[in-house]
Amino acid sequence: MSNQEFVVLGQGGPDACRPGLLAAPLAEDQAAELAKVFKALGDPVRLRLLSMIASRAGGEVCVCDLTPAFDLSQPTISHHLKLLRQAGLIASERRGTWVYYRLLPEMTDRLAGILTRTAGQPLHDSGEVPA
Amino acid sequence: MSNQEFVVLGQGGPDACRPGLLAAPLAEDQAAELAKVFKALGDPVRLRLLSMIASRAGGEVCVCDLTPAFDLSQPTISHHLKLLRQAGLIASERRGTWVYYRLLPEMTDRLAGILTRTAGQPLHDSGEVPA
Repeated sequence: MSNQEFVVLGQGGPDACRPGLLAAPLAEDQAAELAKVFKALGDPVRLRLLSMIASRAGGEVCVCDLTPAFDLSQPTISHHLKLLRQAGLIASERRGTWVYYRLLPEMTDRLAGILTRTAGQPLHDSGEVPA
Repeated sequence: MSNQEFVVLGQGGPDACRPGLLAAPLAEDQAAELAKVFKALGDPVRLRLLSMIASRAGGEVCVCDLTPAFDLSQPTISHHLKLLRQAGLIASERRGTWVYYRLLPEMTDRLAGILTRTAGQPLHDSGEVPA
């Protein structure tokens, strides 16, 4: 991408009442809340765990099926899962010996939404930068 | 959301060749790469900076317009901007005294894409969990 291309965003439009990360400056409290969720995603082990849980046909995964994929101890995996749970990305349920995890798609939907450009946000403008 | 609801994801489909976070388990290298970007987003100041840059009509923002919004020093703001730049989320250009920042929408598009459920991923299944 050349330096001559500029992005033109945030020019109002029908989505102005539903601010996303790209549509309007985030308020401090909103930024603090979202940062916690992104921080939970900011680790390769947690991303892999989340993708294993989310992509599992049937919708849930036993912790006993997650740990063998990693060269990490069970407590370490459980700690990562706890951080994903605290971020609202997954839910857990204990049944008998094992804990089962499932995706909370509302949160990933929300993140996808705030990272998606709205109709009022064109891809690029060819170098025209208003003063 | 009740514990009786389960998510059914990753049942193949036309998007199987374009894996997202929710469609298939992430490979280690892919997870490591994505985690860096999410980690860059995992801070309230950086999220606010990114939203200020992305939502600016005209597409770019002078660093001199960003710092007054924060109770932080210019070097601290510059450090946060550097992390966003290293993550591929923004680009910068020096012109005269000031550095100007603009969104790289390819990266936010990519993140939105991997967090978006595909057509083959229904919202919820009402409790049916295949063995």
